[in-house]
Amino acid sequence: MPTLRLALAQVNPIVGDIGGNTALVRRVAGEAAAQGANLVLFPELTLTGYPVEDLVFRSSFVRASQAALPRLAAELAQDGLGDVAVLCGYLDADGPAPTSADHRPGHGPRNAAALLLGGRVVATYFKHHLPNYGVFDEDRYFEPGSSLTVVRLGGADIALTICEDLWQAGGPFAAAGRAGVGLVLNINASPYELNKDNVRLPLVRRRAAEAGATVAYVNTVGGQDELVFDGDSLIVTADGELLARGPQFAEHLLVHDVDVPAAGTADGPAQAPGDDMTIERVTVDLPLRPVPPLRARGGLADRIADEEEVWAALVLGLRDYVRKNGFRSVVLGLSGGIDSAVVATIAVDALGPDDVVGVSMPSGHSSGHSRDDAADLAKRQGLDYRSEPIQPMVDAFLANMSLSGLSVENLQARVRGVILMALSNQEGHLVLTTGNKSELAVGYSTLYGDSVGGFNPLKDVPKTLVYRLARWRNTVTPVIPENSIVKPPSAELRPGQLDTDSLPDYDQLDAILLGYVDGDQGRDDLVAAGHDAALVDRVLRMVDIAEYKRRQSAPGTKISIKAFGRDRRLPITNRFREGAV
Amino acid sequence: MPTLRLALAQVNPIVGDIGGNTALVRRVAGEAAAQGANLVLFPELTLTGYPVEDLVFRSSFVRASQAALPRLAAELAQDGLGDVAVLCGYLDADGPAPTSADHRPGHGPRNAAALLLGGRVVATYFKHHLPNYGVFDEDRYFEPGSSLTVVRLGGADIALTICEDLWQAGGPFAAAGRAGVGLVLNINASPYELNKDNVRLPLVRRRAAEAGATVAYVNTVGGQDELVFDGDSLIVTADGELLARGPQFAEHLLVHDVDVPAAGTADGPAQAPGDDMTIERVTVDLPLRPVPPLRARGGLADRIADEEEVWAALVLGLRDYVRKNGFRSVVLGLSGGIDSAVVATIAVDALGPDDVVGVSMPSGHSSGHSRDDAADLAKRQGLDYRSEPIQPMVDAFLANMSLSGLSVENLQARVRGVILMALSNQEGHLVLTTGNKSELAVGYSTLYGDSVGGFNPLKDVPKTLVYRLARWRNTVTPVIPENSIVKPPSAELRPGQLDTDSLPDYDQLDAILLGYVDGDQGRDDLVAAGHDAALVDRVLRMVDIAEYKRRQSAPGTKISIKAFGRDRRLPITNRFREGAV
Repeated sequence: MPTLRLALAQVNPIVGDIGGNTALVRRVAGEAAAQGANLVLFPELTLTGYPVEDLVFRSSFVRASQAALPRLAAELAQDGLGDVAVLCGYLDADGPAPTSADHRPGHGPRNAAALLLGGRVVATYFKHHLPNYGVFDEDRYFEPGSSLTVVRLGGADIALTICEDLWQAGGPFAAAGRAGVGLVLNINASPYELNKDNVRLPLVRRRAAEAGATVAYVNTVGGQDELVFDGDSLIVTADGELLARGPQFAEHLLVHDVDVPAAGTADGPAQAPGDDMTIERVTVDLPLRPVPPLRARGGLADRIADEEEVWAALVLGLRDYVRKNGFRSVVLGLSGGIDSAVVATIAVDALGPDDVVGVSMPSGHSSGHSRDDAADLAKRQGLDYRSEPIQPMVDAFLANMSLSGLSVENLQARVRGVILMALSNQEGHLVLTTGNKSELAVGYSTLYGDSVGGFNPLKDVPKTLVYRLARWRNTVTPVIPENSIVKPPSAELRPGQLDTDSLPDYDQLDAILLGYVDGDQGRDDLVAAGHDAALVDRVLRMVDIAEYKRRQSAPGTKISIKAFGRDRRLPITNRFREGAV
Repeated sequence: MPTLRLALAQVNPIVGDIGGNTALVRRVAGEAAAQGANLVLFPELTLTGYPVEDLVFRSSFVRASQAALPRLAAELAQDGLGDVAVLCGYLDADGPAPTSADHRPGHGPRNAAALLLGGRVVATYFKHHLPNYGVFDEDRYFEPGSSLTVVRLGGADIALTICEDLWQAGGPFAAAGRAGVGLVLNINASPYELNKDNVRLPLVRRRAAEAGATVAYVNTVGGQDELVFDGDSLIVTADGELLARGPQFAEHLLVHDVDVPAAGTADGPAQAPGDDMTIERVTVDLPLRPVPPLRARGGLADRIADEEEVWAALVLGLRDYVRKNGFRSVVLGLSGGIDSAVVATIAVDALGPDDVVGVSMPSGHSSGHSRDDAADLAKRQGLDYRSEPIQPMVDAFLANMSLSGLSVENLQARVRGVILMALSNQEGHLVLTTGNKSELAVGYSTLYGDSVGGFNPLKDVPKTLVYRLARWRNTVTPVIPENSIVKPPSAELRPGQLDTDSLPDYDQLDAILLGYVDGDQGRDDLVAAGHDAALVDRVLRMVDIAEYKRRQSAPGTKISIKAFGRDRRLPITNRFREGAV
């Protein structure tokens, strides 16, 4: 029984940086070889990053990916890695790229994987199952492949698959079973959502059983706009044994020896009736680097609690958004409240205190504790702390315009937005905005006021989870003032204002939002689930009319089934009202 | 040969307003019957409006559409229209709605058409070709139908089809040919883009020939977020004769008598080999209202020039965005420049001068002609004109912060944004923003400054077209001051500033943008097309780094192949640079 030393490379590519991503593959393949690996797996669309969205409609981009692949193969050989098999994702196409306005995909782009060995591309595979739900639009971008590639390499038969191929029954894994392979490689760019790791392992086990083979699953790690990829790479045997597992949210090279049945011991027919995939067999006679005698064991990374998992996702999502977009530092308003305290802490954890500027912007309505709590937070974390009282600017507007009520409340928030943007322009920081998912859902924010900013770490974090995160983070080190956690939340835009003046209790609100936003439940479903009917009506009405504000809000890391943004798409102009049917 | 009196109802439904849309069908069906029509066609997804996007994932919404259909059939009969056949679009589903996070569509929703007669639903059809390019995501939302419905009605065989079924060869129109139908009905929600009417007629002719039958094509009219539907309904015979054509951008009832071959005179086989559509035949024995003896002729609406066509699209898009979202009035800044002058004029044409507030917001850098030209425009059009000098507010910021250079320029634009939003809050107007497509493309705007606003009529209008529109509009009535058209464009954020300090000549800029943005061309394609290489590099770099600002910009009416927004989707974090490959 041949033994292969697999290296699952949980790397962090950058979308569009084909040169940088190619260099990343070379560097990490070298590290894997230094650990004796002879088969190294990189994630889905390694060379282009994921997702590339409408870049696939530009021929120059597709050509750049296609050209990079054989160059990479040659460079790996030049690096002395010609006897190490490297599987990586890239963008391919059958012909000239169609434009996005084409009515038929035509020479459709392909979400592809290539096996590189001996300085050459020895096999390719095109993704069969294309996800087109949630955050995915792959029917817009790719043509599906219809043939499973099985490579005979190092004495074993190995099937190549990509991401969604694993999430749907039938197709490539069934074909792999028919083909009698000993190992299925599955390369992924699988975005994080809370507890997804609990879904992933049983799924990989199911497919390993379907294929009757060991499955090696490698996933990207890193933030890309609203998505964050969590790694969590896995190796699972046909009978469900978890051999090795990588950590979440960290770059990692998971090196593990796998015994694979000898090739040809279980070949099935080339195509069974009723199965729509053909099997393309490729025999690679090139020598593979021998595996060193001492067995490599990748180990099983510890599972982590929900709060720690979300925190890690938010830190990584923010760090990558800032760094990959060429910023060094961030600025945000510190109100003394829980949301800005948590965002500041995430930012310090992501970037370090020297690259985080916190600005207290008190008004006449700000309480003493607001300034004290903000200053306390800044002191605990060592971030760059400033104070910019807003009253002189607010007064200048009030002296020249006739404003009252809500207009004056919003004015204060907008003056703060102008101050933060001025600091951004003057000093080059990215502005962070701090509205949580519950506020965003019901429109409890000022458009062009507290919503000003380039990125919002809490965009997908309900208020009740903000509290849980703060408490969990303080168990590690007490960086958030207790008073910011325990005091009643207030926007402090008028004297004595409290969130509860305008909003239901956050426990009730979040429970309804979870059903309505994340769960697509209607009014009657929510009432049947035990929520107060009048409260349901009130919340649903707020959510329905806040759509425009949400559209204008900054991107932020997705952590749930349905964040506002790319995986929830609603018309702004829309008169459907639950209960009015 | 039976004669049918067709009425093609170019109506303007509202997304989500199932009750209102049902009432609209009843009212217009009555008007058609009063003109002697016995077969009335309403557009795609009439009952729900189009597009419904992620509303399809809410079971309560799908059920509301399903329940409305038989109720509408009964109400039409109660209205005395039981002998008038009414074809309308609605949302159906095979089972409980899946959620948007489902990995498989399951009991997928259907983009459906129903024929109502005698108080009942007598036939239904599910759209076969689902568009999934440009602004369309129908693979995300619907399951395709696989059966063509052919109705024997009034002595004729009539096929039911929906929108995209017409844009792709094969499928329903080929099946209609096989079935030997005499008439194909095609109901649409087909969004406008410049000169699309020139594509539509040859396409309908091609499909009429393919089916060997007359085609009646009805299209929605009206604005929905960034889309505007232009009507332009058509009736074309099998040999390509254009019998009748409705106007663009106006609600209209196109009533025309059509002679249809008697049923059964050309029946083909039920299914030919190699064709993937089955044919479902429905015979309706209910009586159809007799056609009056004097023949009805719908006439051929005049074609209009490009500028008039775009103007009409922008006026309708703005009016519907304002009205359908429950606003009455708009406010915008009047700088005296061409962009705000054109937006104000579009707004007055859409809403009337009483519901348009124009605010001059001069700074120390504003020239005398800026105020004069703004006041002149307001006087010519009779809109509500105000002046709010910004210097006191700007000075309050400058006195309290250390700002210089670009930060001071942006500060002025942001103070204007705060003023407009304060007026919006205080008086209830929707704020219009006025950045044209060229400026948006290269990021020549201030985020949270001049980009503040709920809707931007010029979002998809390049600067050179803004000038053409202004000149065309003045040929109708001279509402735009000549000086706003002829003076060199300037943001007036520092002394003596001109657009040409920062941007190429607009003729050159727009030509490059057309290739890069609308045409997906790469750097080398653009240079090969004759553009200066250094200029191409400069423009492409500006476009690439402006992505975040465009994401934050207001919705606006789409008029081109590729507007920024729903039909152009790019990662914000993206390092691909043309020429750097």
